Amino acid sequence: MRNVLLSPGSHRTAGVLDDTALVGAMLQVEVAWVRALARVGVVDGDLAAKVAKVAADREVDVAALAAESEAAGNAVVPLVRHLREAVGEDAAPVVHRGLTSQDVVDTALVLLARDALVRIGDDLAASSRALAALAERHRRTMMVGRTLTQHAVPITFGLKSAQWLSGVLDAMAEVDDVLVGLPVQCGGAAGTLALVGELTDEPLAAAQAFADELALSWPGIPWHTNRSVITRIGAAAVTACDALGVVAADVSTLCRPEIAELREGAVAGRGGSSTMPHKHNPVLSVLIRSVALQAPLLGAQLHLAAAQAVDERPDGAWHSEWPALVRLLEAGVTAASQAAELTAGLEVDTERMEERVAAAADELLSERGGGGEPSDYLGSTDAFIDTVLARVPEQRAAHG
Amino acid sequence: MRNVLLSPGSHRTAGVLDDTALVGAMLQVEVAWVRALARVGVVDGDLAAKVAKVAADREVDVAALAAESEAAGNAVVPLVRHLREAVGEDAAPVVHRGLTSQDVVDTALVLLARDALVRIGDDLAASSRALAALAERHRRTMMVGRTLTQHAVPITFGLKSAQWLSGVLDAMAEVDDVLVGLPVQCGGAAGTLALVGELTDEPLAAAQAFADELALSWPGIPWHTNRSVITRIGAAAVTACDALGVVAADVSTLCRPEIAELREGAVAGRGGSSTMPHKHNPVLSVLIRSVALQAPLLGAQLHLAAAQAVDERPDGAWHSEWPALVRLLEAGVTAASQAAELTAGLEVDTERMEERVAAAADELLSERGGGGEPSDYLGSTDAFIDTVLARVPEQRAAHG
Amino acid sequence: MRNVLLSPGSHRTAGVLDDTALVGAMLQVEVAWVRALARVGVVDGDLAAKVAKVAADREVDVAALAAESEAAGNAVVPLVRHLREAVGEDAAPVVHRGLTSQDVVDTALVLLARDALVRIGDDLAASSRALAALAERHRRTMMVGRTLTQHAVPITFGLKSAQWLSGVLDAMAEVDDVLVGLPVQCGGAAGTLALVGELTDEPLAAAQAFADELALSWPGIPWHTNRSVITRIGAAAVTACDALGVVAADVSTLCRPEIAELREGAVAGRGGSSTMPHKHNPVLSVLIRSVALQAPLLGAQLHLAAAQAVDERPDGAWHSEWPALVRLLEAGVTAASQAAELTAGLEVDTERMEERVAAAADELLSERGGGGEPSDYLGSTDAFIDTVLARVPEQRAAHG
Amino acid sequence: MRNVLLSPGSHRTAGVLDDTALVGAMLQVEVAWVRALARVGVVDGDLAAKVAKVAADREVDVAALAAESEAAGNAVVPLVRHLREAVGEDAAPVVHRGLTSQDVVDTALVLLARDALVRIGDDLAASSRALAALAERHRRTMMVGRTLTQHAVPITFGLKSAQWLSGVLDAMAEVDDVLVGLPVQCGGAAGTLALVGELTDEPLAAAQAFADELALSWPGIPWHTNRSVITRIGAAAVTACDALGVVAADVSTLCRPEIAELREGAVAGRGGSSTMPHKHNPVLSVLIRSVALQAPLLGAQLHLAAAQAVDERPDGAWHSEWPALVRLLEAGVTAASQAAELTAGLEVDTERMEERVAAAADELLSERGGGGEPSDYLGSTDAFIDTVLARVPEQRAAHG
Repeated sequence: MRNVLLSPGSHRTAGVLDDTALVGAMLQVEVAWVRALARVGVVDGDLAAKVAKVAADREVDVAALAAESEAAGNAVVPLVRHLREAVGEDAAPVVHRGLTSQDVVDTALVLLARDALVRIGDDLAASSRALAALAERHRRTMMVGRTLTQHAVPITFGLKSAQWLSGVLDAMAEVDDVLVGLPVQCGGAAGTLALVGELTDEPLAAAQAFADELALSWPGIPWHTNRSVITRIGAAAVTACDALGVVAADVSTLCRPEIAELREGAVAGRGGSSTMPHKHNPVLSVLIRSVALQAPLLGAQLHLAAAQAVDERPDGAWHSEWPALVRLLEAGVTAASQAAELTAGLEVDTERMEERVAAAADELLSERGGGGEPSDYLGSTDAFIDTVLARVPEQRAAHG
Repeated sequence: MRNVLLSPGSHRTAGVLDDTALVGAMLQVEVAWVRALARVGVVDGDLAAKVAKVAADREVDVAALAAESEAAGNAVVPLVRHLREAVGEDAAPVVHRGLTSQDVVDTALVLLARDALVRIGDDLAASSRALAALAERHRRTMMVGRTLTQHAVPITFGLKSAQWLSGVLDAMAEVDDVLVGLPVQCGGAAGTLALVGELTDEPLAAAQAFADELALSWPGIPWHTNRSVITRIGAAAVTACDALGVVAADVSTLCRPEIAELREGAVAGRGGSSTMPHKHNPVLSVLIRSVALQAPLLGAQLHLAAAQAVDERPDGAWHSEWPALVRLLEAGVTAASQAAELTAGLEVDTERMEERVAAAADELLSERGGGGEPSDYLGSTDAFIDTVLARVPEQRAAHG
Repeated sequence: MRNVLLSPGSHRTAGVLDDTALVGAMLQVEVAWVRALARVGVVDGDLAAKVAKVAADREVDVAALAAESEAAGNAVVPLVRHLREAVGEDAAPVVHRGLTSQDVVDTALVLLARDALVRIGDDLAASSRALAALAERHRRTMMVGRTLTQHAVPITFGLKSAQWLSGVLDAMAEVDDVLVGLPVQCGGAAGTLALVGELTDEPLAAAQAFADELALSWPGIPWHTNRSVITRIGAAAVTACDALGVVAADVSTLCRPEIAELREGAVAGRGGSSTMPHKHNPVLSVLIRSVALQAPLLGAQLHLAAAQAVDERPDGAWHSEWPALVRLLEAGVTAASQAAELTAGLEVDTERMEERVAAAADELLSERGGGGEPSDYLGSTDAFIDTVLARVPEQRAAHG
Repeated sequence: MRNVLLSPGSHRTAGVLDDTALVGAMLQVEVAWVRALARVGVVDGDLAAKVAKVAADREVDVAALAAESEAAGNAVVPLVRHLREAVGEDAAPVVHRGLTSQDVVDTALVLLARDALVRIGDDLAASSRALAALAERHRRTMMVGRTLTQHAVPITFGLKSAQWLSGVLDAMAEVDDVLVGLPVQCGGAAGTLALVGELTDEPLAAAQAFADELALSWPGIPWHTNRSVITRIGAAAVTACDALGVVAADVSTLCRPEIAELREGAVAGRGGSSTMPHKHNPVLSVLIRSVALQAPLLGAQLHLAAAQAVDERPDGAWHSEWPALVRLLEAGVTAASQAAELTAGLEVDTERMEERVAAAADELLSERGGGGEPSDYLGSTDAFIDTVLARVPEQRAAHG
C-alpha cells in the first residue's frame, strides 16, 4: 500500500481504485472481449469459459507486474502474457486477440470510474438529503450574511444550506450525465479494428457484444485520441469537489471559536489533539477542503493530455492521464463520503446565530436605511429555498 | 491596449472581450435592471428610458475607471457612481437599486461569454464542415497509422479527419449545451433580494424581467457562491481547445519536412521567416497548439475559485475568476477562428501518403502476419467514418 | 486597453508590462544589437546612431502590429519590417542582422521582467520594513494561536508578524537571486549564431557587447530550448505571491467582525459598499489573495512550456509562455505594491487581542496542564522574532 | 500497493517514497526528538535508547494506520499512540513530548525528499556525463536544425546534446542548492516551542540537537506557515523533469521512422508491441515525457498550499501538499532514473543525419544566401559546446 497515509480518509475508497481493483478490471475486460468474440462466433464458447475461469482464479503479483510494465509502457502487455500462459495453448491465441493495450487500459479505467462515480453520486445524494433537511428545518433560523468577510444583510441558515445544496445538486446532475453511456474503448492497433475484421465479418457486432458484456455502451468509433470521455469524467469529479469544498470551507469558518455557529458532529476520537484536550478540530472539513484544493489541477491534467492526444495513439500524453484520473476519483470518493458524514452530523448553534443577528441588527439593516427587524428583511429567502428543494430528486437511478 | 502582441491572433476577438466590451456589457446590465424595475411597476418608464439613453451615449474612460476600481475591489462601484451622476437627480436613485456589484459583474461576464461561445460554436461548426469534407474526400486515401510515434497499421486520411471531427463535434455539443439557459445573476447584497423586496411585492418577477431584457434565463436563485455556471462555460471553452489542439498537433507533426503529408494552406506573408526564404512554418497550428497548452490551466483556475466561494460572497476567490475566464474565452475564440481557417485550407499530399504506405507495407501488415495489400487491411474504417459523419448537424441553432 | 478592469490594482503596473512597454523593449533590443555590431566593427557607428534615433522617435500602432503578428507567429517580424522601412535603405540591412525573432522576444521579455522584479523586490523590501516594525512593536502583544481554525496555545502578534516577514524575506532573496545575471538571448536562426559568424570573426564579442548594451549578462550559449531563465523568473514571482498571500489571508480572517483583531488602514473611499454604509471590506487583502490564487498556475504554465521546448526552437510551447509570464509579473507587481500599502497601514487592535487571550486562557494553557499566565507560556517566541529580524537587510542592492 | 501500475517505471522508487518509507521516517523523527531531549538533559539516555530500539523493531500495519489517520487528520496521532503503548509506561511520556504533528510530518517528508533529491541528483549527474560524452563525440556530426518543425540552418548533434546538457546542469544546480540546508520542522503546538520551554531552559539547543540527529539544519524558527522549503523542493524536482522532458520529447521526435536519426538503446523486451513485431517504441522517452507533463501541476499544487498557509497551522492547505509532494518526487526519481538509462544507451544514426543535411543543403544555407558547405555554416557551435562542457562538475558532493 502506498501513500494512503498522505490522503487521510482515502481508506474509504478501499477496493475501488487501487492496483488490485485495476488488475481485476483489466482481467474483466480481457474476459469480456473473449466472450464477445464467442458471441459473434469467432471463439468457441468453452474456450471463452475457460479464459473466464482462469482469470477469475488468478492471483496477480502487483509489484512484479509493475516492474514488468515499464518495458511496454503499460501493464497490459505483461498481464496478457501471464494470462496466456495460464489459459493453456488452446486458449492463449484468443486472449486479447485484435485488441490493443489502450483498449484494455481505457476500458478498465472506465469501469473503475463508473464504480467511483456511482459512489460519489450516492454520497452526494446522501449529502443532498441532509442539506435539504437543514434547509427546511432552518428556513427561518436567522443568521448574519457575510460578504468579503464582513457582515452584510441578514440571511437564514436555511438559505445557506439551500445554496450549498444547489451546488451539490449541480454536481449530482453532472455525475449522472456522465454515467449515462460510458463507453468501451475498442479499436485495435491504430483504431481500425483491422485484425478483428480478419476474424469476423461483423467486427462492429463484436464491439457491441464487448460493450454489452461490461454494461457499457459502444460509441460506434474508438476514442483513442478524442479524450472527451475522460475529461468529462474528470469534470464531474472536480465539480463534486467544488461543491463540497464550498460546504467545507464555510463550515470550517463557522466553526472558528469566535464565530462558533456550527460544529462538526462529535465522533469519539475525532478532531482531538494529542496535547490540547479542549480542541475540537473540524477534521472532516479540513480534509474535504484539502481535496477541493487538489481536484482542479488533477482535472486540468486530463485536459492537458486530451489536448495532446496526437497520432493514432499518443506518445506520453495518454500515459499522463492515468495517475491524475485515479487520484482525482479517489479524491472525489473520499470527499463525497466524508461530506455525507459531515452534513448528516452537523451541529447548528441557532442561539448563537440569532444572538449575533440581534447584536448586529443595525448594521444588517443599514442597506434598508435601518428600522424594523432583521427577520423582516429576508427578501425572497423562502422562495429561493423552495426553488432548490424542488430540485432534490425523489430517488436516484441505478447505474452500471 | 495590452498584451495583444503576446497572443498572436487575438485581434480576431476584437470587440468581444476587451474592457470596452466589458463596460458596454455592464452598462447593458444596469439598463436592463432599470427596465426590469419599470416592467414590474417600481420605476417610471420615462426614467428607465432616460437611463438607457444616457448609458447608450456614454463614453467611458477605461483607464480612469480601472484606477478607481481598486478601492471597491471591482469596477461596478465607480461605474455606477458615474452613471448616477450622468442620469441626473431624478433617475440616479433607481440606477443599480437593489443589486450588488456581483450581480452586475457576473451577468456582464455571462453576456461576454455568450458572445464568445457563439463565435466559438460557429467556428467549430465551420471546422466540422471542413473536416467532414476531408473525411469524405479522403475516405480511401491510404496513410500510415502512427502509435507511440512509430508506424502501426494502415489507416486512411479520411479516418484521421473523422477522428479530428469527432472531437470537434463533442466540443460543439458542449458549447451548445452551455449556451442553453445561461443565467442572469440577481441576488442583491447577500443573495436574498431583500432590498428589491422593499420596492415591490414581486421581486422574482423583477428578476425574471431582468433576464428577459437580456435574453438570459432566471434560474430561480442567485448563484453568488455556486459557480457551476462559470466552470461549465470554462469547461466548454477548454474542451474546444482540446479538440483543436489535437488537430493542430497532428498537422504540425505531419508538416515536418521529413513527413510532409500535410501543409497549411498558403497565405501571402504567412509562415515566412525574415531570413530563411524557404521556410513555410505551420503558423496556425503552432498558435493553436500554444493556446491548447494554456486552456487547461485557465479552466482549473475557475474550479479553484468555485471550490472556495465562501460566505455569501467570497473574499478573493471570485475575483480570481475574472482574468482567467476572459483569457480562456479569448483563447477559445482565437483558436476556433484560426482552426476554421486551418481546416478549410489544409493541403493534403495524397501521393506522399500513399508512397509512404507502399514503402512501409511489410511493417504495416506485420500484425496480420503479412500478405495482401494495406488497402485490404482497413478493418472498420469506413463504418467509423460514417458514424462520425452522421453526427454532423445540418444547421446550428441561433443563440442569444 | 484591455482587461485592466478585471485585475483591480493592475493600474499600479502602468508602463511596465503593457504592449507599449513591450514594443519599447523590442526596439531597445534591436538598437542594442545594431550598436553591438558597431562595437565589433561590423556596422558603421553613424548607421547605428541613426537606427537608434529612428527607433527612439518611432510611434508604433500596437493594434495594427498585433494584427500583423499572426502571420509570422510573433510581433518581431512586422516590427522589424517597419523599422527597416523607417531607417532608410542604407541602414535597413543592418537592422536585426543575424538575430532570430526569439532572440528579440526573449530578451525584451527579460527586460520587462527585470523592471517588474525590481519593483516587486522594492515593494517586498517596503513590506519587510513594515513587518519588522510590527514584529518589534508587538513582540509582547499577546494573541491566541490558531491551528486548524481552533485556539491552540498563546503567541504574540510580533511572532505572527515575524512569520509573515520570514516568508517575505525568502521571497526577496529569491527575487534578488534571479535579478543577478539575467541574460540576453542571442543565437540566431537555430542557436548557432551562424550568420553573425559571417559578419565578424568575433560573434561572441558581439553577443557580449549586446549584453553590455542592455546591462544584461551573456551566458555563453543561447537558451532557446533551455527555459530555466524563464521558469526561475516565474518562480520568484510566484514565491512573492505565496508570501503575500499568507499575509492577506490572515489579515482577511483577522478582520472578520467576530475576530476584529486587525483592520486594513482606512483610506477614503476604499473598502466601502455602495449600499451598506457600515462596511469596511478588507479590499487590499481580498485582491492580494485573489492574485495569490492565480500565481501558482501561471508559474506552472511556464514549466509546461519549458518541458516541451523541442527542436532548436519550439512549435507552440514557447508561444504559450508569453501571456502567462506577463500576467504573472503583473500579478506580482500589483500584489507587492498593494502589500506594501497593506502592511504599512495595518491597524492592530491590541486590546481585543489581549481580551481574547484572557478569556480563553484556560484553553490556551491546557497543553501545559493549566496554571500560570498565557504570557508565561510563550516558549521561544522572543528568540524566533530575533532570528527573523536579524535577516532583514540594511539596504537593497540596485539592479538593472 | 496502489497505482504503481499507472506510473510505469515507478518501481524504480521502491523503498524511497512509499508509506513504509514514510512510517520509517516518522519513527526516525520521533526517535531523533527523544534523543535530542536526552542530549539537552531532559530525558534519561536509557529511556531514549529504549524508544529507539522499540521504534526500530516495530512493524506497522500501514492499512490500519491509514484508517486511524482520518480522525486526527494525519498519521502522527495514531502512530504516536501505538509507539507510546509499545515503549511502556516509563518511556511513554517522553515520546513526542513538546512536538506537534506537523513537526513530525514535515520533518519526515523532508527526509523522504532528501533521499529522493539525492537520487535525482545522482541520476542527473549520470545523464550529464552521458550527454557530455555525446556532445564531445558528435561535436561535428552535422544535423539539420529544426525550428517551428521546419528545417532552419545546420547544427551538429553535439550542439543539440550540449543544449540538453545545459538544461540538465541547471537542474542539477537547483537540486544541489536545495539539498544544502534542508531543515527540521520544530515548533510545537503553535510554533512557539512553549512546552519544550517548560522542559528545559534551552529549547533551542533541543531543536539544534534534533536537527543534528537527522543531519538536517535548524533554521532558527519553525516554518509551519512559511512553505518555501517545500516549494523549493518541488521547484527543483519540476526543473529536473523540465530538462529531461525536453530530451525525451526530442528523442521521441527524432525516433519517428521518417526521421530516424536517433533510437533508444535496445533492451530485450522493451518497446515491443504484442501484435506488431517490427515496432520499437521509444518507451523511456514516452514515459519521461508523460512525467514531464505532470510535474508542473504538481509543483503548482505546492505553491497553492503555500499561498494559503493561514493561522499558525493551516486548515487544509497543508494537507493538500502531501500527495502532490510525494507524487512529484516519485515522478522526478522515476524520470531521472529512466533518463540516465536513455542517455547512456542512445543510438545515433550519424549517417542518416548527414545524408539529410546533404539533401537539404540548399535550404539550410538559404539564410546565408546559399553557397559553401553546411559544415562551414556552424557559427559558434564549437564555442557553445565548450561553454556547456566546462560546467560539468568533476564530481558531486555527498548529501544527507
